Amino acid sequence: MHSDATSSDRDASPQPKRPIGVFDSGIGGLTVAAALRALLPHEDIFYIGDTARVPYGGKSQATIERYSVEIAGLLLASGAKMIVVACNTASAFGIPRLEKTVAEPVTGVIVPGARAAVASTRNGHVGVIGTRGTIRSGAYERAIRALAPEVRVTSRACPMLVPAVEEGWLDDPITDSICARYLEELVASGIDTLVLGCTHYPLLKPALARYLGGGIRLVDSAENCAVAVRNLLVENRIAAPEGCPGKLQVALTDPSDGFLRVAERALGLAVGDVALLAVKTAG
Amino acid sequence: MHSDATSSDRDASPQPKRPIGVFDSGIGGLTVAAALRALLPHEDIFYIGDTARVPYGGKSQATIERYSVEIAGLLLASGAKMIVVACNTASAFGIPRLEKTVAEPVTGVIVPGARAAVASTRNGHVGVIGTRGTIRSGAYERAIRALAPEVRVTSRACPMLVPAVEEGWLDDPITDSICARYLEELVASGIDTLVLGCTHYPLLKPALARYLGGGIRLVDSAENCAVAVRNLLVENRIAAPEGCPGKLQVALTDPSDGFLRVAERALGLAVGDVALLAVKTAG
Repeated sequence: MHSDATSSDRDASPQPKRPIGVFDSGIGGLTVAAALRALLPHEDIFYIGDTARVPYGGKSQATIERYSVEIAGLLLASGAKMIVVACNTASAFGIPRLEKTVAEPVTGVIVPGARAAVASTRNGHVGVIGTRGTIRSGAYERAIRALAPEVRVTSRACPMLVPAVEEGWLDDPITDSICARYLEELVASGIDTLVLGCTHYPLLKPALARYLGGGIRLVDSAENCAVAVRNLLVENRIAAPEGCPGKLQVALTDPSDGFLRVAERALGLAVGDVALLAVKTAG
Repeated sequence: MHSDATSSDRDASPQPKRPIGVFDSGIGGLTVAAALRALLPHEDIFYIGDTARVPYGGKSQATIERYSVEIAGLLLASGAKMIVVACNTASAFGIPRLEKTVAEPVTGVIVPGARAAVASTRNGHVGVIGTRGTIRSGAYERAIRALAPEVRVTSRACPMLVPAVEEGWLDDPITDSICARYLEELVASGIDTLVLGCTHYPLLKPALARYLGGGIRLVDSAENCAVAVRNLLVENRIAAPEGCPGKLQVALTDPSDGFLRVAERALGLAVGDVALLAVKTAG
């Protein structure tokens, strides 16, 4: 059915449909792919997870730049019309270089998340949670300060949350206890907005909301990234015509473990067959 | 005081004291350093944590071989009289190559742990816990099968335990719940011996024992590795003379985060100043 739809699509249009290229160091960026599917259902998406070299956090800026250029090159070689960096580390360290070397539009997760946090806060005090690497990089603080120097940012590294998500412990008393442990001080500090500064965390929104109740707004970087993508597609006049449903294609640089299926189920994504791409993994 | 002791030591003996060289992909291998300090208090230890390239798990065999040869080379350049691979991944994939290229004795954590498990089990059913990479590699199963083909091995990956240790949540109800989750099926399967197949796990012995009670013996790879080191020192006649207390020197390939101090405190190790060593981290 899919191949039929594609070929009739090609017959109707002189240009084949170009996908939005999305990449992450691993599987977590599929939350961004899911947000794109929800907001832009007629767009094709080509997602590459660089699972052979995950995690990027902790690697040097030069290495992350090189990885980002390599993976963006694979996406562009597949006809991608824009590059979405669905990875916090690569957003912080890879985008400046990509913007210099790639003709197509590029966006990441940090600036859209920072923009949404500034728009959301009423009391001028924003919390950010992320991996140890993201929090240590200070990328969200810098992005928020650039937009609104008066906003106060309180950050907290939550290194147990990614493994909890990867275990599939999404609706789980252990994960609830871990969330409570991490959020307790942030809540006491008086934040009214919490940025989910890691692409895995949207899968924990129910768990985080159970602890936070309604008083603190959650800023989902994946959703805000999807809004930024929609704006770029419109500005650059490269949005796909509506009507024909888009497809999601996933490729990984190393065979995945069970987390791909956890994410597929939790996100309601139809991932289907996963291609394996070669990258040089020597370190 | 230390430098005085060293120079008088040198005056007394024509040969400077050569350290035992220990390496790990990160900080976890300090449990092996602590076991060596306890068993062989008069030995000097030089420990390198390859924190710039942690984790090794998930990298290719060729890459891990290269890392192992590089780090062993740094230890040997500092005069190490033997190489202790205090890392499960490097023990599985790096030792065969090291044994071919290094003249000094080499040992790791897997074979000593497997030997102790075979000696411990009464009912012939051993459990192994470790990271996803170690369990997927099957290294403990292979090592146990080579020693005692009749012993049954049941394995379980426990990816939440390393981050729990690195958070310092050693005596903690959340960690107790995680241990219970992971161990429940292993206990139900009828094991009478449990191998701690990750260098971080000795720090969880109290938590694991709280769940297991007295019925299941814990095999601590770090302790068994120290016994193997003592045997190799004696066989090769390279043990340090008793009397003069040994020193521990630690070097890392990337500035450490808080886990070094967690380990230092939990292990009662006097780590002191930590040197920074350069390795090529591009990957």
